[in-house]
Amino acid sequence: SMADEAETKGGLKITSDDGNFSASLGGRIHFDTYLFDTDIEDPVSTTDFRRARITLKGNIYDWKYVLEQDFAGGSTGRGFRDVFIAHKFLNGEVRIGQFKPFRSMAEMTSSNEITMLERPFSSAAGLYEGFQFQQGIGWTGVLDCFTLGFMAFNLRDAGTVRNEGVGAAGRLAWHPINTDYATLHLGTALNFENPNLDSKDITAEADYAGRRGPTQLIALSPGDLGDDVSTVSLELAGSYGPLYFQSEFVVGDYEADYYLSELDFEDEFGAPPPFFCDPDLGCYIGDQHVRTWYIQGSWMITGEHKTYSEKRGAFNSARPSGNGLWGGAWELTARYDTMQNRDIYKLEANSAQIGLNYYANRNVRVMLNLIFGDDEFTGDNTNQLGLRVQMAW
Amino acid sequence: SMADEAETKGGLKITSDDGNFSASLGGRIHFDTYLFDTDIEDPVSTTDFRRARITLKGNIYDWKYVLEQDFAGGSTGRGFRDVFIAHKFLNGEVRIGQFKPFRSMAEMTSSNEITMLERPFSSAAGLYEGFQFQQGIGWTGVLDCFTLGFMAFNLRDAGTVRNEGVGAAGRLAWHPINTDYATLHLGTALNFENPNLDSKDITAEADYAGRRGPTQLIALSPGDLGDDVSTVSLELAGSYGPLYFQSEFVVGDYEADYYLSELDFEDEFGAPPPFFCDPDLGCYIGDQHVRTWYIQGSWMITGEHKTYSEKRGAFNSARPSGNGLWGGAWELTARYDTMQNRDIYKLEANSAQIGLNYYANRNVRVMLNLIFGDDEFTGDNTNQLGLRVQMAW
Amino acid sequence: SMADEAETKGGLKITSDDGNFSASLGGRIHFDTYLFDTDIEDPVSTTDFRRARITLKGNIYDWKYVLEQDFAGGSTGRGFRDVFIAHKFLNGEVRIGQFKPFRSMAEMTSSNEITMLERPFSSAAGLYEGFQFQQGIGWTGVLDCFTLGFMAFNLRDAGTVRNEGVGAAGRLAWHPINTDYATLHLGTALNFENPNLDSKDITAEADYAGRRGPTQLIALSPGDLGDDVSTVSLELAGSYGPLYFQSEFVVGDYEADYYLSELDFEDEFGAPPPFFCDPDLGCYIGDQHVRTWYIQGSWMITGEHKTYSEKRGAFNSARPSGNGLWGGAWELTARYDTMQNRDIYKLEANSAQIGLNYYANRNVRVMLNLIFGDDEFTGDNTNQLGLRVQMAW
Repeated sequence: SMADEAETKGGLKITSDDGNFSASLGGRIHFDTYLFDTDIEDPVSTTDFRRARITLKGNIYDWKYVLEQDFAGGSTGRGFRDVFIAHKFLNGEVRIGQFKPFRSMAEMTSSNEITMLERPFSSAAGLYEGFQFQQGIGWTGVLDCFTLGFMAFNLRDAGTVRNEGVGAAGRLAWHPINTDYATLHLGTALNFENPNLDSKDITAEADYAGRRGPTQLIALSPGDLGDDVSTVSLELAGSYGPLYFQSEFVVGDYEADYYLSELDFEDEFGAPPPFFCDPDLGCYIGDQHVRTWYIQGSWMITGEHKTYSEKRGAFNSARPSGNGLWGGAWELTARYDTMQNRDIYKLEANSAQIGLNYYANRNVRVMLNLIFGDDEFTGDNTNQLGLRVQMAW
Repeated sequence: SMADEAETKGGLKITSDDGNFSASLGGRIHFDTYLFDTDIEDPVSTTDFRRARITLKGNIYDWKYVLEQDFAGGSTGRGFRDVFIAHKFLNGEVRIGQFKPFRSMAEMTSSNEITMLERPFSSAAGLYEGFQFQQGIGWTGVLDCFTLGFMAFNLRDAGTVRNEGVGAAGRLAWHPINTDYATLHLGTALNFENPNLDSKDITAEADYAGRRGPTQLIALSPGDLGDDVSTVSLELAGSYGPLYFQSEFVVGDYEADYYLSELDFEDEFGAPPPFFCDPDLGCYIGDQHVRTWYIQGSWMITGEHKTYSEKRGAFNSARPSGNGLWGGAWELTARYDTMQNRDIYKLEANSAQIGLNYYANRNVRVMLNLIFGDDEFTGDNTNQLGLRVQMAW
Repeated sequence: SMADEAETKGGLKITSDDGNFSASLGGRIHFDTYLFDTDIEDPVSTTDFRRARITLKGNIYDWKYVLEQDFAGGSTGRGFRDVFIAHKFLNGEVRIGQFKPFRSMAEMTSSNEITMLERPFSSAAGLYEGFQFQQGIGWTGVLDCFTLGFMAFNLRDAGTVRNEGVGAAGRLAWHPINTDYATLHLGTALNFENPNLDSKDITAEADYAGRRGPTQLIALSPGDLGDDVSTVSLELAGSYGPLYFQSEFVVGDYEADYYLSELDFEDEFGAPPPFFCDPDLGCYIGDQHVRTWYIQGSWMITGEHKTYSEKRGAFNSARPSGNGLWGGAWELTARYDTMQNRDIYKLEANSAQIGLNYYANRNVRVMLNLIFGDDEFTGDNTNQLGLRVQMAW
């Protein structure tokens, strides 16, 4: 018969009989509990909705929309996630609206499928703090065994004050091997940001003891002085049966040319300046060279294999076979993550993590992370035990 | 045929052909108009959206999610209502996320089905002011003719500042009689709260002249001193044909050990202290014993019977038979509600209400309440005429 | 078979087999980019989500709900758009909740179908600044070749502070000609507002260089003094094949009786008072007579015809025939818009605009506007180039 088709895998979906139209309503709930083993800093141990999103998607001929709102964002403006209009173009799509610049493998991985509770410092959880989603225009697609993405953007998302800063980012990922059992991934990305009238400061920050723990400021380029920020990254990742590893190495140049009083320096960076400050002018902050890298990996104890998404140029979660304890899949995880300012002595933070993930089915996951934080600048060694229960549909 | 099934009773619902998946999108609009007959206090008479919610629910095998946002909450954080992940367990479900602690029959009644415009003082509209939904883990289920619920929680919801306060609540309801014509319900609940780092104050407050009217503070236990709050309640309720009554009696112990200046006392409680205050230290506030009880009832003029929800351990609205004026059902309602601090002379507020409800159909209801407020502490006798038009789907 | 029917044209819709129930989830994304050619004023050129809405609608027998939230509103309260419960009555519907007062043809035109990027000054983009949606009760319907609408309202929407101001508005539109090829429309509307306890100021403001550009205050009636505001308007519009024009003329009386210091006057109005101010009392602001009118028109280059919505008493967008460049429809547009305070010398702002619209299909539109702003009071001549990409479903 000629009727549109309704479908559910936990969400709502309807597709027209001619395939020209479709619409779906999905969502995700990520609920966290975290306990700190405090040291110098004294963060609050509590529970928190990390994400509570609804996601509307639809297709109208060659056009597409995504409208995603995270009610855990604090306000409707800050709750904007992917909100864009797209049109098919080559083997991909041109997007206009708000989406993520293409500049980190970790960012390209869905929050439903990340290995640890939070993304590493090479993502908006560190290097691109406060600049995860941007407004602009871009294209992403797959050509042969390459995944490409480009975006020209305004330095704002829907929750940021209107400003005239601009930027551009591009990423090229290559998967020379991608079979049912093994994948090899190499990638590189370039990013450039030019703040301008009313732009906010561009900072690199390390949440070295997990989310809501202490934050170490690594670099700051003022938003109103027009100093540029640029980053270059390399990616290496792979999987082999139940094993998986992923690594990114990024160097960033945060241009700056300003003075802070010794008091302000300590306020911002958490410790006194380790260099001589001019008695009249204060502590000089020039161009700052940031270096961050991480390596993470996992072993699916129950034998499943993480597949690779060519569209994203990043790994998916393994799909549980249902053979493990409690009818699910189990995964052991680990990461070492570090970020440093190469121009200020000992301005460096590190994070070592181990974890265990339980997949009840394709939609439900429980994650446990033990995070050992190390702030070399302040000497703080706060640790975190974090637990997430998540469902996505 | 093997197709998923779409269905509407005003909302959107799709169920998979094998029954393993389902999803629905519902909602509710409650629109209020209220006029005050002011006395000492001078509240604003106006219109207000009491609730404007969307409710997403879904099932994936034995798992379930609820994601409910009230756009009338003021912000997305304060708009979180039931937002949890659940798993079937015994004859009930284990929940993790945000939901209501099990501690009051009035709270267990859906806002779509409450008898008067607002719940009585024994609920989050009084005794648990600002603590209606909490984050934590719990179980609720039905065993034989008992409805049980337990929850261990953090002293926060999604709109509260992160803090380390904790609490626990449990409720046992018994329905020895529950036929098509008559129900007898008895219940009891225990609740305990222990504020801690960054917890907000725990207060009992009486909105004795309806919502948005004057508020009388009955007791306050400071959030940062670690003093505990505990409550014990008894429930008695029943229905017989078109008649229904419900009553709760609660005693609460708000631990405290602090001094207020006479000015601060009057600011907080609305009248001068009725006891001697130390000239140096101020007015001493020690442990405060709160007592609140209400009795409410209704008569379905058009003869319908309110059924009892075993799952909630609370009464449903009557389903209109369509035989009344304008093809709906009509209900006469009344309540007497009182709350007092037993340790401070005359610190007591009372509320007497009568009302009329019209049910156009299962989804649409119009409510009219006349509320006579009486604040014995300040002498204020503000009254309210309140009207609600509501639709739920 | 007797199954409810699912359907998509980009959104989700389900209708019950007996037609008694239906529900739909739609939405819209309007994404703007604007560049200013600045003069005296210095607004920020940037990108912005003009609208990002979800729209739930449903029918239950003769009742209906609309629940629309704009995530681009800044907060959930300010994000309320149409949120009401309605019941069929005569050849129309009685509404209760939040919706637009019936007082401007431009306001009655959907934001998906407006001719230029923004509505003219005769709408909530000027004369009714901050009062687009109100809470109250009303009726709208079609009788023969007349479209009528009446509303009694509170001076608030869901994002406004609770207050006791009230108002009423009514509109009568007549379409003596309405064929497949030509329409003639005449209309008139009356509006009255009476601010009271806690009401905000009622102002007329001209965004003469497009949204987010400079604003010229034209008149201000204080919210707390009980001075009334009333407006009367005339509408003339028509279409003939691919041609369309529309015009409104409105006079408003903003009662006032207050003094401003010369400094405050300049703060509010952007230029020194052009009249004598009393050295002791300041600059007297009495009743202010506002006059605003616009004329706008368009030519569908690709030959389509804009149809007329009898329900709204306003024109729809043309439906693209798909014969134009890039398979869509193209439209040339223009508007001249002016608003002045007749009691203060040269207190007047004008806006001349030309534009080009591209309709990719029924759901997707791209709009380009060039706006020449002229503030006669301050001498500012800021211009704006605005681009919108929109999708509605």
